[in-house]
Amino acid sequence: MKLYGYWRSSASFRVRLALYLKELEFEYHPVHLVKDGGEQHTPEYRKLNPAGLVPTFVDDEVTLNQSLAIIEYLDERYKQHPLLPSATVDKARARALAYDLACELQPVTNLRVLKYLTGELNCSDEQRNDWIHHWVHQSFTAFEQRLTETAGDYCYGDSVTLADICLLPQVYNAERFKVPLDNYPTLVAVHDRLQQLTAVQQARPENQPDAQ
Amino acid sequence: MKLYGYWRSSASFRVRLALYLKELEFEYHPVHLVKDGGEQHTPEYRKLNPAGLVPTFVDDEVTLNQSLAIIEYLDERYKQHPLLPSATVDKARARALAYDLACELQPVTNLRVLKYLTGELNCSDEQRNDWIHHWVHQSFTAFEQRLTETAGDYCYGDSVTLADICLLPQVYNAERFKVPLDNYPTLVAVHDRLQQLTAVQQARPENQPDAQ
Repeated sequence: MKLYGYWRSSASFRVRLALYLKELEFEYHPVHLVKDGGEQHTPEYRKLNPAGLVPTFVDDEVTLNQSLAIIEYLDERYKQHPLLPSATVDKARARALAYDLACELQPVTNLRVLKYLTGELNCSDEQRNDWIHHWVHQSFTAFEQRLTETAGDYCYGDSVTLADICLLPQVYNAERFKVPLDNYPTLVAVHDRLQQLTAVQQARPENQPDAQ
Repeated sequence: MKLYGYWRSSASFRVRLALYLKELEFEYHPVHLVKDGGEQHTPEYRKLNPAGLVPTFVDDEVTLNQSLAIIEYLDERYKQHPLLPSATVDKARARALAYDLACELQPVTNLRVLKYLTGELNCSDEQRNDWIHHWVHQSFTAFEQRLTETAGDYCYGDSVTLADICLLPQVYNAERFKVPLDNYPTLVAVHDRLQQLTAVQQARPENQPDAQ
């Protein structure tokens, strides 16, 4: 298995988390998103991923993009350490938590959107930071309320699920942009418990070979 | 089954598509996103959906948010007219196509983001439209390239899948904001074929009771 990713990309972080949580061995191929205008735009990488996004995942003859599709694939193909509950309703609820972050928060705060703000729209650094803080607070406020109903040790009950995999990169980003998390005690408690897992430490951005 | 949605919301449109494609009966409860500051912000609706987003779906004792989680739930619980291929790799590829739109394009062009642009960031209508055109072109360029490899009659082979469900609202929005689609012949051909399905006509925004 090969994972093409970038240390600080949320979507790459998610796939690393799934791979380590499921104890699957893989080769990590860094794709630098900033250097020389971005290695994701090279013709060679675009052959693997026409959108020029990370991550791309290769498992034998299978090449996949989109972190959530990769993780569902891994969970269906490799049964150890399941990342979704088995019951239909529980699975739907855990997925909904994951999508609350992956489809609402991550896309509006990712690198290319921030670049558009400061580039085409000529936003100041302050406006860019306000943008990030606004969407993090909007998302985490609703997420905290959901967690009070769903969380055990982790986001959905006492097993690590896709929801936790989506939470970790969003907290990493929130901390990076100094968003205060005092209003989200359940979220922070879950995040603290996740940090204690070896797989989470292995997957963290700062522990990747391309981290700077 | 009850669906709380808004005629023009992409995510509501997706769930209607799934329900009609699977020939499931449901009650439609309109939630007006604009009138009186938005009915999605009322305390009553927030009880159903703390994020104040549509849609919310209720099936007996189950209340779910997030359109993709609702659709996966429907597909797992009600087996007729499956919306994902059964083989693991095909399923992953169809999901990846869906997420290319649902996790990259839709979130950056939805109503609350556009409101932030013209409100907090004081963008002009032209800047707002440029924003929409930019992300649609970026997304559809990559999607068109993928479709040349995956499409049959529909986005992934010859059956309607989650990918088509995600495509329809994005084309509806692109047309609404007058984004030219000439460079996306495969995408347009798939979209034209989808329009011929009764379920698609039933689900279209303009055919809902709350359409204006």
